[in-house]
Amino acid sequence: MKKMNTSPISGALELLPAEQAVFTNLKNKIAEVYHRHGFLKIETPVIDRTEILFAKAGGDTEKQVYKVVKTAEAADEADQALRFDHTVPLARYVVEHESDLVFPFKATQIGRNFRGERAQKGRYREFYQCDIDIIGRNQLSLAYDAEIISTLLDAYKSFLTAKVVARTSNRKILNGLLEFLGLSHISKEIFDVVDHAEKVPAEASREALQNLGINDEAIAVILSFIEIHGPREDVIPALRDLNVTNETFSLGVNELDTTLGLVAAQGFGDNIEGDMKIVRGLDYYTGTVFEFCLPDYKGIGSVGGGGRYENLASNFTDQTFPGVGGSIGLTRLYYVLTENNLIKSQDGELIDYCLIPISENEYTFVADLAAKLREKGQTVDIIFSDKKLGDKMTYAAKLAKNGVVIGGDEVASSNLTVKNFATGEVAPLNI
Amino acid sequence: MKKMNTSPISGALELLPAEQAVFTNLKNKIAEVYHRHGFLKIETPVIDRTEILFAKAGGDTEKQVYKVVKTAEAADEADQALRFDHTVPLARYVVEHESDLVFPFKATQIGRNFRGERAQKGRYREFYQCDIDIIGRNQLSLAYDAEIISTLLDAYKSFLTAKVVARTSNRKILNGLLEFLGLSHISKEIFDVVDHAEKVPAEASREALQNLGINDEAIAVILSFIEIHGPREDVIPALRDLNVTNETFSLGVNELDTTLGLVAAQGFGDNIEGDMKIVRGLDYYTGTVFEFCLPDYKGIGSVGGGGRYENLASNFTDQTFPGVGGSIGLTRLYYVLTENNLIKSQDGELIDYCLIPISENEYTFVADLAAKLREKGQTVDIIFSDKKLGDKMTYAAKLAKNGVVIGGDEVASSNLTVKNFATGEVAPLNI
Repeated sequence: MKKMNTSPISGALELLPAEQAVFTNLKNKIAEVYHRHGFLKIETPVIDRTEILFAKAGGDTEKQVYKVVKTAEAADEADQALRFDHTVPLARYVVEHESDLVFPFKATQIGRNFRGERAQKGRYREFYQCDIDIIGRNQLSLAYDAEIISTLLDAYKSFLTAKVVARTSNRKILNGLLEFLGLSHISKEIFDVVDHAEKVPAEASREALQNLGINDEAIAVILSFIEIHGPREDVIPALRDLNVTNETFSLGVNELDTTLGLVAAQGFGDNIEGDMKIVRGLDYYTGTVFEFCLPDYKGIGSVGGGGRYENLASNFTDQTFPGVGGSIGLTRLYYVLTENNLIKSQDGELIDYCLIPISENEYTFVADLAAKLREKGQTVDIIFSDKKLGDKMTYAAKLAKNGVVIGGDEVASSNLTVKNFATGEVAPLNI
Repeated sequence: MKKMNTSPISGALELLPAEQAVFTNLKNKIAEVYHRHGFLKIETPVIDRTEILFAKAGGDTEKQVYKVVKTAEAADEADQALRFDHTVPLARYVVEHESDLVFPFKATQIGRNFRGERAQKGRYREFYQCDIDIIGRNQLSLAYDAEIISTLLDAYKSFLTAKVVARTSNRKILNGLLEFLGLSHISKEIFDVVDHAEKVPAEASREALQNLGINDEAIAVILSFIEIHGPREDVIPALRDLNVTNETFSLGVNELDTTLGLVAAQGFGDNIEGDMKIVRGLDYYTGTVFEFCLPDYKGIGSVGGGGRYENLASNFTDQTFPGVGGSIGLTRLYYVLTENNLIKSQDGELIDYCLIPISENEYTFVADLAAKLREKGQTVDIIFSDKKLGDKMTYAAKLAKNGVVIGGDEVASSNLTVKNFATGEVAPLNI
């Protein structure tokens, strides 16, 4: 009988071994693709100083940060807290280690972050994020925006058969449009309306814009603007046809055009679209912004995203470090893929061989056999127990692909047979 | 100029990319060996409920636990905290998921744990541990003790050329001896003296025992007992020669004899010794105990250890889950190996190819070439920048093994040459 509640904290994903194997496999595939694209792995501490974490955070994020305390001090005075994303620690890392890094610095961080969000289905308080970032010193070519998007698309391709699309925009385009319409003073509010446009009926967006005191003509322009989406050859002309005579707007359209073209050049032309509804919630994006979705599974929503920021570490240094980055929220991704049966448990994580000695007399022979099989890269378990042979075989069949029973005869003759549990087939084992 | 202190928290190991590659390589090798020995990977949340973490902790550990709080509540009332080891969450996991697990359950956990220790050289507040455990239901064969030790020895062998020895004892031996000497009532105090015997002169141990009120005859027995160490063929007879007529003692000697024999049977006879100085600090060990050391580098001390516990989860359930487990403290290990030059930075983590387009006109060709190389499993970086070719080559040589410059001629002819930065050799690149 249980003496205590042993469930994990709410908002944590705790998996059984077979599920964990699938999760780990996803994580390894993402890491492998990031590595092939030349990103260097770094790890930052989970605990960081509160002043560092709060230098950029604000609003909801700040409320969700977990403080870390050892003594009876009040949490408000805690000078350490758990990181809530990888971007802030990256900014600290770049400033701290600047003289030892080569720029552009292509970094990947894969690890857990922490947010005390209200726990709900598919939302986690402790979650894995798989980030890539490219940081320049003073300047950074736009081509790296395309490199980030292509790398992420390549990562999704490594484990998903469903189609993934990078819905891409550029903050300069909407900023330029709002300048042109004389609405820059309420750009933040309008960004929010655009950001939510997808989740509400068009009428609700119109109403929200009316409530901001915008005239009907400008509202019509904004509402038709945010409907623009599709492949490069449709989106870029549609944007130019708006005849917005504004430098920021034109620059944004040109940047988007270049980005869409370079991602296509990497072989992902079918996996990228321009989409003016994409703005991303965070304040610090200044150019390219993108979100990944599965067009055949609309309900899933975004499975990752990122963008360009002109200055990564402005809170920590006077130097300018422009960057572009993106992230796959692995814990949520695992959850939605599993929910939608888009990912299969593989038997790839079953042990290759279970060795079953009949008695203690065979232990030495079996240990030697196990060592030989492991040297060949096989995964091997040995069953040591007093249970009946039938029970041992049942146990072995749950864990392993193959079983080998070893008794006195087998030790004497070295003639071994192996049973394949999936097919029931029995064959000689040659080492 | 920096505006803020950007160093990581004290007690965290924050590595540069080349160092991180070495660290990650160690971690992957350990994980690979654990996997080949049939251990199943699990992950428990970093944050757990305080009542779970504190059910077993006590003394120093309790003082070192980091509480996690969101609001202004006092830390004393915090109902969540950061895990300080993998064993307590494993106990919770086994109880929580018991009906879904196959026993004996062979689990591995590799991840970060947290202790607010006084920060000092080689001591970390945030550190990786690489644990393996085998958990039985009601009973668990002694052969698994040997399996844990052999697996850990195999793990060390995968990255160390220096010899590693598992110094092994069995708690029952010392317990039996103390029963025999009529000293069971102060066994905890004597365990402490034995545990520290290595770090102090023999005279200090004698004095400590005298201070416990033990008579000189018994002290002489204890002091000569703790000097017993060496290979199985020396240690087992030496223990039997003590003529201690006590059942617990005899059982302990037999268990040690079996364990040493089975580890030798796995091919690690030269890497295991009996050693009566080994007791391990933690209360919950009840049988086999072991610590790993590098005999050629005495100063390094223990690089891992573990033991047998009769009841993993007694605080959480009435059921009995005997277990045996061990752990490699990876962060400390990385530190001591690096300090002692026992581990070399490898160039294995350098990128294979750096592709250097002369101008934007070559981007498409280069992106296509990169995709082809990556498909072959090569790691490829592309340099997008307006810098001079010489600067680009300098950058490439820092990051990559090979560089390929691509200009208009190369695109037209598809004749590419690759430069090996280590040898300076230039050769045709055939894709």
